[in-house]
Amino acid sequence: MANNAAPLERLIEQFSRFPGIGRKGATRMAYQVLGMSAADAMELAKAIEEAHTRLHRCRICQDYTEGDLCRVCASPKRDQSIICVVESPRDISAFERTREYNGLYHVLHGLISPMDGIGAEQLCVKELLARLGDGTVKEVIMATNPTVEGEATAMYLAKLIKPMGIRTTRLAYGLPVGSSLEYADETTLYRALSGRDEL
Amino acid sequence: MANNAAPLERLIEQFSRFPGIGRKGATRMAYQVLGMSAADAMELAKAIEEAHTRLHRCRICQDYTEGDLCRVCASPKRDQSIICVVESPRDISAFERTREYNGLYHVLHGLISPMDGIGAEQLCVKELLARLGDGTVKEVIMATNPTVEGEATAMYLAKLIKPMGIRTTRLAYGLPVGSSLEYADETTLYRALSGRDEL
Repeated sequence: MANNAAPLERLIEQFSRFPGIGRKGATRMAYQVLGMSAADAMELAKAIEEAHTRLHRCRICQDYTEGDLCRVCASPKRDQSIICVVESPRDISAFERTREYNGLYHVLHGLISPMDGIGAEQLCVKELLARLGDGTVKEVIMATNPTVEGEATAMYLAKLIKPMGIRTTRLAYGLPVGSSLEYADETTLYRALSGRDEL
Repeated sequence: MANNAAPLERLIEQFSRFPGIGRKGATRMAYQVLGMSAADAMELAKAIEEAHTRLHRCRICQDYTEGDLCRVCASPKRDQSIICVVESPRDISAFERTREYNGLYHVLHGLISPMDGIGAEQLCVKELLARLGDGTVKEVIMATNPTVEGEATAMYLAKLIKPMGIRTTRLAYGLPVGSSLEYADETTLYRALSGRDEL
């Protein structure tokens, strides 16, 4: 469009706010919207509105859900004695796909990051601590990303939780399955070595 | 989210319809929407609705515009004797950025593609022909993409326009500026050779 009319410009700007979508990608998306039927465009707009109005955080684990409790927290089949702490709701899907974990989750909705001005008080930390008071939970697994922020957050939480007499663990570091030794970075290789298992 | 509640699932599905956005990217975007403030999410939904309701095709060139005519068609400064035919409104921005073209445009809104079941009658071809009847236009530049579909569409249009006594040209093929000969494909190199210019 030669004159980049205001509504188009606004739409491009909106799409460019998504992480990983640059100006060019946002422009493509905006034109794609213009090329849609009116019904399809309204459906897209409505899906955005509905997701935002109908979903909210689970009262217990802070994952997104339509009801008061999410499916995991509401299930009587899940092991109530173990909580896996993750950064975002997306991480829960990854664990569920393994079909190996049967405990509960807790979503922090972020990581401690002094560089971005994010402290523990902006995360769902007090909601986590509130779940640990009655003696049901025996272990908390830190499953934050293996990054500086993820590490720092796990350390911070461990310091709060260990004194409560609850076992505090974190995911193992090591070689990704199917990867090649040749391309492993030194830190990962060191961790794989120091954490080696008996065969 | 463990239970991928219906509104989230619908939003992911909507985002995956965009070209170049896979299931993973769509999931990231959907969670990004959930993480927005309510006001931001509504603004996004509204931008989609507004772009779709407020923009429509220019009566003459079929580019998107808010008014009856787009800025190019409405300008008295543009050369009315030459029309550059493009596949999509996005292509117009590319030409405008060169600041070298001062003629008019015509957007086909697609290319002839028998494989996808798209024939000339689904493109804005009759709107183009309607502009050529009164003798104002002296030249039509085919600026469709240098692909099979782009070529076929340019050929098809040339066959219709040439008999009207209007000069019909197409963009030059050759080496992209700043590229390396070493990486040029044979067809491009052959075209660059056969279309060589006097120094």
